[in-house]
Amino acid sequence: MRALLFDGHLRYDPHYPDPVPPDGHVLIRVTKAGICNTDLEIVRGYMGFSGVPGHEFVGAAQGGEWDGRRVVGEINLACGQCETCLRGMPTQCPNRTTLGIDRHNGAFADYLTLPSVNLHPVPDSVSDEQAVFVEPLAAALQTLHQTHISPHQRVILLGAGKLGLLVAQVISLTGCDLTVVVRHQRQADLLAGWGIPTARAGELAPRSADVVVDCTGTAEGFKEALNLVKPRGVVHLKSTYHGLPQADLTRVVVDEVRIDSSRCGPFEAAIRLLARGLIDVEPLIEARYPLAEGLAAFERAGRQGTLKVILDMA
Amino acid sequence: MRALLFDGHLRYDPHYPDPVPPDGHVLIRVTKAGICNTDLEIVRGYMGFSGVPGHEFVGAAQGGEWDGRRVVGEINLACGQCETCLRGMPTQCPNRTTLGIDRHNGAFADYLTLPSVNLHPVPDSVSDEQAVFVEPLAAALQTLHQTHISPHQRVILLGAGKLGLLVAQVISLTGCDLTVVVRHQRQADLLAGWGIPTARAGELAPRSADVVVDCTGTAEGFKEALNLVKPRGVVHLKSTYHGLPQADLTRVVVDEVRIDSSRCGPFEAAIRLLARGLIDVEPLIEARYPLAEGLAAFERAGRQGTLKVILDMA
Repeated sequence: MRALLFDGHLRYDPHYPDPVPPDGHVLIRVTKAGICNTDLEIVRGYMGFSGVPGHEFVGAAQGGEWDGRRVVGEINLACGQCETCLRGMPTQCPNRTTLGIDRHNGAFADYLTLPSVNLHPVPDSVSDEQAVFVEPLAAALQTLHQTHISPHQRVILLGAGKLGLLVAQVISLTGCDLTVVVRHQRQADLLAGWGIPTARAGELAPRSADVVVDCTGTAEGFKEALNLVKPRGVVHLKSTYHGLPQADLTRVVVDEVRIDSSRCGPFEAAIRLLARGLIDVEPLIEARYPLAEGLAAFERAGRQGTLKVILDMA
Repeated sequence: MRALLFDGHLRYDPHYPDPVPPDGHVLIRVTKAGICNTDLEIVRGYMGFSGVPGHEFVGAAQGGEWDGRRVVGEINLACGQCETCLRGMPTQCPNRTTLGIDRHNGAFADYLTLPSVNLHPVPDSVSDEQAVFVEPLAAALQTLHQTHISPHQRVILLGAGKLGLLVAQVISLTGCDLTVVVRHQRQADLLAGWGIPTARAGELAPRSADVVVDCTGTAEGFKEALNLVKPRGVVHLKSTYHGLPQADLTRVVVDEVRIDSSRCGPFEAAIRLLARGLIDVEPLIEARYPLAEGLAAFERAGRQGTLKVILDMA
């Protein structure tokens, strides 16, 4: 099959071996896949991954009872037997591998395999391009699993990139008083189109938010989040961070701030919101590339301020 | 009056002016006061404090309706009128001053003043020396205000110093499966006397605790707490930190760890537990000094591994 391959550097391989599904796995022909910031980190060495990256996808199941169904797939391959799995937290399974991230080949190829328990059918009302956003939208929704946001609350979101713009839409559905801090006019325009207020850094009062969601993944973002949150408020970390940022833990303690965090989330909820048309993903698509032009797609995705780049396997 | 004074360096002043209570304040003749790690930080420059330090005390009210009553006092002088106060969080009032810590003279003197709303009578069943522990015990109890610890849970406490040994006793009352990490045999013996299991650093399995309470106030402690907590567990920060420690926020996000924190707590609850004899403070007293020997008391309190040093104003 055709595949993008990373083994220290990224390359296109038109003759990579097809995957053979192990017991319990389903073979999936990938239709479209999205490039995420984690993919950009992976090709810089994150997780020491080697193989086919890619974890945001929609595809068609091949063979067995799923044959021909349009599916998306949860990315964590859990053991199903450890204490963490038995406590209902398979995304935290210590024995997990992860699609395109950790010891399991991913979606930037013609085929991938996933356990059937990871699959979710995509309803007709959700297009292929929308379906590519199920995985990041599920991650955005996990914010609300880990942090209760009340409609009474004032919320500030930092980092209006690919993921931040999904998180902003999700939080906005709670009816809370949300403001998103933006750096570029394009972000401001997108958010204005959804009726979500925006501000520039420095325009917001310190200690004014009940909840600050930090989607920046930077030490500066974390510092600003601590600056903006009220005493006994919540800072929610929605991105992984580069390196070990310095953190003002004394401020955390003195203000009795709580720090929540979240990662992978509920696919079913993401599909329901997309099916109802409550989340707008179309304007988040920056560009579309055929798989054979994957290197150019990665180059484009890596440019500052770029939104979602989609690989098309057709 | 006699007072310990800090204005860049610590000194004993036998002729410091008596405080004059403003409206709503009560004059208190201090009986005994405890030296806390915050006091040690203050004489190293923390908070830029200048004046009489000290915030753990028991005393006798002078004049007015409180006259002659034995009292302890909450240390935050809140405005009572801002949004934070009206939300019921006076300890977080942005307009607050703090006894012996921030712009209000403290307890290492013959007299102090506090607003009458800050005072709590001490029942006869609580001795003066026990009463000195009401303030730090209230802070220890605030751990359970900010973090729900269930009797089903496995909890690890790091940093078995003055405050940590109070926090350990409080957490132990929940019936949870608590282990305290100790560095010295003396800590192990104290905890064994209370029936609380101990371990040495490195003996505990990574990702094994539902809740890790970090009373170390060190970057190493925070790192170890993250190492010991289960995915989706809680790390509770119970001490302020020196400087800006580096923090593995990516580990926080990937494991979806929650970080709670707490500071000042409920005096009434602390008094109830002391009155019932459920918290053992006597063995936490390292030494007693008269006020005039305050410099020696500070020197002693600053030695590694020293527990509570009490100043006696008699």
